Amino acid sequence: MTNTQLTLVQIDNYGPWTVTPEPRREMDLQTLQSRLFADIAQFVGYRGGYAFFTRFDNMVAVTNGLDTDDHRLLQESMGNRYPVTISLGIGVDANPAVALEAATEGLQLAGSAQDGDRREVLTGTPITDGTDDLSIAHFDVNDATEKYTDRLNEFDSFIQIEQGYATLMRYLREEHGGLSFFVGGDNIIAVTPEMGADAYRDAIDHVEDAVGVELKVGVGRGATAHEAGMAAKHALEECRHRGTAVELDDVAAGVESE
Amino acid sequence: MTNTQLTLVQIDNYGPWTVTPEPRREMDLQTLQSRLFADIAQFVGYRGGYAFFTRFDNMVAVTNGLDTDDHRLLQESMGNRYPVTISLGIGVDANPAVALEAATEGLQLAGSAQDGDRREVLTGTPITDGTDDLSIAHFDVNDATEKYTDRLNEFDSFIQIEQGYATLMRYLREEHGGLSFFVGGDNIIAVTPEMGADAYRDAIDHVEDAVGVELKVGVGRGATAHEAGMAAKHALEECRHRGTAVELDDVAAGVESE
Amino acid sequence: MTNTQLTLVQIDNYGPWTVTPEPRREMDLQTLQSRLFADIAQFVGYRGGYAFFTRFDNMVAVTNGLDTDDHRLLQESMGNRYPVTISLGIGVDANPAVALEAATEGLQLAGSAQDGDRREVLTGTPITDGTDDLSIAHFDVNDATEKYTDRLNEFDSFIQIEQGYATLMRYLREEHGGLSFFVGGDNIIAVTPEMGADAYRDAIDHVEDAVGVELKVGVGRGATAHEAGMAAKHALEECRHRGTAVELDDVAAGVESE
Amino acid sequence: MTNTQLTLVQIDNYGPWTVTPEPRREMDLQTLQSRLFADIAQFVGYRGGYAFFTRFDNMVAVTNGLDTDDHRLLQESMGNRYPVTISLGIGVDANPAVALEAATEGLQLAGSAQDGDRREVLTGTPITDGTDDLSIAHFDVNDATEKYTDRLNEFDSFIQIEQGYATLMRYLREEHGGLSFFVGGDNIIAVTPEMGADAYRDAIDHVEDAVGVELKVGVGRGATAHEAGMAAKHALEECRHRGTAVELDDVAAGVESE
Repeated sequence: MTNTQLTLVQIDNYGPWTVTPEPRREMDLQTLQSRLFADIAQFVGYRGGYAFFTRFDNMVAVTNGLDTDDHRLLQESMGNRYPVTISLGIGVDANPAVALEAATEGLQLAGSAQDGDRREVLTGTPITDGTDDLSIAHFDVNDATEKYTDRLNEFDSFIQIEQGYATLMRYLREEHGGLSFFVGGDNIIAVTPEMGADAYRDAIDHVEDAVGVELKVGVGRGATAHEAGMAAKHALEECRHRGTAVELDDVAAGVESE
Repeated sequence: MTNTQLTLVQIDNYGPWTVTPEPRREMDLQTLQSRLFADIAQFVGYRGGYAFFTRFDNMVAVTNGLDTDDHRLLQESMGNRYPVTISLGIGVDANPAVALEAATEGLQLAGSAQDGDRREVLTGTPITDGTDDLSIAHFDVNDATEKYTDRLNEFDSFIQIEQGYATLMRYLREEHGGLSFFVGGDNIIAVTPEMGADAYRDAIDHVEDAVGVELKVGVGRGATAHEAGMAAKHALEECRHRGTAVELDDVAAGVESE
Repeated sequence: MTNTQLTLVQIDNYGPWTVTPEPRREMDLQTLQSRLFADIAQFVGYRGGYAFFTRFDNMVAVTNGLDTDDHRLLQESMGNRYPVTISLGIGVDANPAVALEAATEGLQLAGSAQDGDRREVLTGTPITDGTDDLSIAHFDVNDATEKYTDRLNEFDSFIQIEQGYATLMRYLREEHGGLSFFVGGDNIIAVTPEMGADAYRDAIDHVEDAVGVELKVGVGRGATAHEAGMAAKHALEECRHRGTAVELDDVAAGVESE
Repeated sequence: MTNTQLTLVQIDNYGPWTVTPEPRREMDLQTLQSRLFADIAQFVGYRGGYAFFTRFDNMVAVTNGLDTDDHRLLQESMGNRYPVTISLGIGVDANPAVALEAATEGLQLAGSAQDGDRREVLTGTPITDGTDDLSIAHFDVNDATEKYTDRLNEFDSFIQIEQGYATLMRYLREEHGGLSFFVGGDNIIAVTPEMGADAYRDAIDHVEDAVGVELKVGVGRGATAHEAGMAAKHALEECRHRGTAVELDDVAAGVESE
């Protein structure tokens, strides 16, 4: 059974900080945000997790395999090296949206994201039993370079990718409780509950019908986001070689027959 | 008159590199991309420009004030410190979309983004006459923390912001040739042509009508993106204090009466 | 008993790379080196280890607690994100100098540091039994701010610190096989074999006699460099409070009476 | 005539910060220091300057070509992105040691490096007339890889390089007012006053006599550290090709005959 552990990473009181005592240089903020995200991606990634930048002041990480001490260490280290601190909420559920709901509620109960006194909160309980796994789906856009990058101006290419993403993120969230994140280029990575190949095909069809963007997807299962994600990447390579739209690794494929 | 200089930053042959000889660790790619963006943001930002991560493998920068030597230096320095190289296309026009069209075409004519032999191309001619200026509009979402961050789970907050962004980016592009970039939190920064307060009000109304997300905007003009952007940030602070939806700095406001 | 695991981190073929096809910008090299070191410090540090920049193209890390998989992961991740690759040699011994000798020999046997074909070598066997510990000594200069920083020009302050360091590094290496690393400010961290308080006092006396620089030292023992180092830092704080020159934590102090 | 502009970069109240409220993780400090240095190296380097890490809490930069606004921008940007702030003292003189003396005094007069209230000080007056130049000497160790790196254990190699450096830094400072900085590997970069080839030969002889380390040196002159340093690197390549110990570029060589 999938059991996804998600961590909401929230920069404490970030909005007010960016304009105090007056608005800070935008490129300094962009640098700060993207480096802070990079450090979290490295930390989480080395432990088998995945981190997504989401809104940068709020990031979502798949943290199966990370315990409370790991979370505290991340919090301490960021506080030592950045002018801002982070709060962390952990949630666990078979359904990613439900897990994130729990993760978010933990922080919300501790105070507002813009409460100057709420700093370095850590809420929620990580999985202690390591027998579960999770599911990662890696989507990309068919022939994005040929159809968009090499033909349209960059912003119009980006609009296509973005409309595809906005549509997919909403569909997977509403239909399945899956959480999709744009990760650059024409790539979208989703943390998904147990879903069969048909469900992925429906998602792809929905996006093509709605905004005309053709996706394909590789799906993997594993004990960590890294393992599941690597299986998903290989499955996506299979799509490329076979010209198929959906490929599930063996574990993920087993879901269908159940 | 506005005259916007845009630079398309394209990582050379990046897609193939990410899966050669086999798929690379996703968190390493995320780290690489966001740090590379951060370095470009710092470089461009210290010269008064703005850089946006866009798709990360393709980034867009507002580079009024940067000449050809600056672009070459950026290219050389990235090549010295990263395992990938970048190509740069420069375009200039009163209308940002037209400027990006020119910037993109320069690179497209030099070869495909996934052509292994096309490396470190530099095309286009920067502005040499420094009398023009440009326009930056800084949008944010009304009461985003109260309405979304402190109430919804993070992904549902993100969906709201994202739908608002997807709608605005398309509207400004299609109606005005303005280019909008999500910059984290609930913030969107747009490079715009000359537009009056009414046109901004229409854009905000359109987003609210279409997806129910309420925006406000501060608009600034200046010789560089930093100057225009700082004026826009201060104008946005004015919106907060006055409870208004649109504020233009004096120079930008002068447009209306013309 | 102390049992120190040291890893030699060597950038492959770095010297030739810095001048190919012609000399690269020095500040790009400085940036590359110090960021690469920072990433290694983070990676190793999160696992309880310590990394020292040493010569930057050759770095030394105390890696008790890191296994072969950890080393491979570090190697893979650096290779994914930098234009250079690293080789790693692991050595283990009660005496740090002997451990580093083994670590170095592993790489030397695999080829020259400037052999273009020798890339991403990994040699040596980490400790598998976790019962041993190691010793860290943290030195600083008495009243460095008052005596040097606030009085001399910065280079003359630096000369004082540097002469103190050059003398200590040589003494501890020759007399005990301890390895000392300058870590910034007026701080020197040494990985030491079992040594009593008298031996540390002699080292401090030697430095003062030779170059007139007065040091004090806190010494800690622990299963990892981080644990031993934190104990050493607290012992050094003890020196400050008590006005003493040498403080050993309880475990380290136990050595004397044996 | 050489006219060197040096900037002392001092992290405000850094020592106390590292142990407040209790000692911080050493690897976080190492990461913070080396990334902060890297950012300064990039900033200064893109403007033609050189920065040296020196003691990390105090860094020295050659800033010919950087004006007061550049210094303020650096200060602002660091303050926006790090948990610590920096003070900057600027000094100018034909003799580098005298220039650094002035740079240091500016900060010392403003308060102690460990005065909690002394933050983001900026003192001194940059060169406004751009007709002067400066001199950079780039030393390395003959056959360092063959003699040390590939034969000795890394610490013993490091001791050799370090003794060579400690000797050279002291000699050039005392005899000529030149300031030498170890920049990694077997490389030392010195900011020097006008010195002829004989004076460099004497320095090299002194180091060999004192500690047995054989150096060679390329010397360049230029309007900025980057220009002078690149000329020095090319001159050092000349030493390699010709088997000579001292090579001066044409401008630097002109000094002798005057």
